[in-house]
Amino acid sequence: MKPTPIKKSEAKRLHILNTSSNLILHKGFTGVGLQEILQSCEIPKGSFYHYFQSKEAFGCELVQHYVDNYQVRLNNVWRSDKSPYQKLIEYFNLWIEDPETQCGWADSCLIVKLAAEVADLSEDMRSIMSAGVDDVIERIAALIDLGKQDLSIQADTEASTLAQVLYQMWLGAALLSKLQKNKIPLHQALRATKFLLKSEDSNKNTIPSCI
Amino acid sequence: MKPTPIKKSEAKRLHILNTSSNLILHKGFTGVGLQEILQSCEIPKGSFYHYFQSKEAFGCELVQHYVDNYQVRLNNVWRSDKSPYQKLIEYFNLWIEDPETQCGWADSCLIVKLAAEVADLSEDMRSIMSAGVDDVIERIAALIDLGKQDLSIQADTEASTLAQVLYQMWLGAALLSKLQKNKIPLHQALRATKFLLKSEDSNKNTIPSCI
Repeated sequence: MKPTPIKKSEAKRLHILNTSSNLILHKGFTGVGLQEILQSCEIPKGSFYHYFQSKEAFGCELVQHYVDNYQVRLNNVWRSDKSPYQKLIEYFNLWIEDPETQCGWADSCLIVKLAAEVADLSEDMRSIMSAGVDDVIERIAALIDLGKQDLSIQADTEASTLAQVLYQMWLGAALLSKLQKNKIPLHQALRATKFLLKSEDSNKNTIPSCI
Repeated sequence: MKPTPIKKSEAKRLHILNTSSNLILHKGFTGVGLQEILQSCEIPKGSFYHYFQSKEAFGCELVQHYVDNYQVRLNNVWRSDKSPYQKLIEYFNLWIEDPETQCGWADSCLIVKLAAEVADLSEDMRSIMSAGVDDVIERIAALIDLGKQDLSIQADTEASTLAQVLYQMWLGAALLSKLQKNKIPLHQALRATKFLLKSEDSNKNTIPSCI
């Protein structure tokens, strides 16, 4: 069946967002010029401005698209029948390596790549990213609360505080992993996460060393 | 007394590094063009290339200059007669606010600003930043070891592991603070630090909530 014009238009918009997302993930937002986006997406300039009013408007949609997709990926982890603790560990393991893509979420994280750049560049892009991060932290906090109820998580710390600390530890680990070109910071973060969640399968007194 | 030509030359090089450092701290490395550096430093292009072979060579010196200065700042904290635990807390408090500059080290951190950008841009700049971070983590680890000896720090976790976890947690907190435009992530990191160091003045069971 022939797709309707609206669907075609939406498919083209998504094609631009997905293709340029990979470019920007490696070169940053400022580092990718409009010409490079047009070439990689094989579209004329007029077509780009048909979908996006400006490069900043495009940046906002790019970040919103990433945030929305991230929520879908979280839904997939959250909806399993594992315990809240196991879901959180599965989520953070995906930061290290996603079996489906052979790549960790940390490596493909637009927040890690763009947060420092965008914070000083575009208030609109910054606020979308910031709201996206708040949503993720809230979802982690809700899962921690559930874990405390079913005792799969035994931390006494307030869920919202623990969720914030965990997220920012992982954000830093992802940044350090990028800088040091190895996954040791992520594995250390996983061990510290188990320690902070004080689950039964973690040693309560120490964060075990990473090899 | 008239300064010698060598000193004048070094002063000019430092002037270029210091002036452009502020620019790059806000706009990133790619976001600041050579022309902007020349204008802000009030130097002709020839003068820039007299001191630096290329923009990347300039970037390497800029980062090395930052790393060297950071070590000097660390020396000032480390050399006090406080306990190792107190020195660490003072150091991390400086991330939040440095009384001398009315600005936190987190706000003026080139690692936070440039790590994600530089990691994919310049192998030489990346390796200087990475080595700088390794040195800081080693110095934190050495202080943790001393703190364990004088019992001001009561964590059972291996010092090098704990130092790495603390540093990456602060790195993520600084990035999140930049993104969210408030210091809550840094205050949460301070509370989590006290918890992880298990000092006598921290509650051993919980990371206290941030207001």
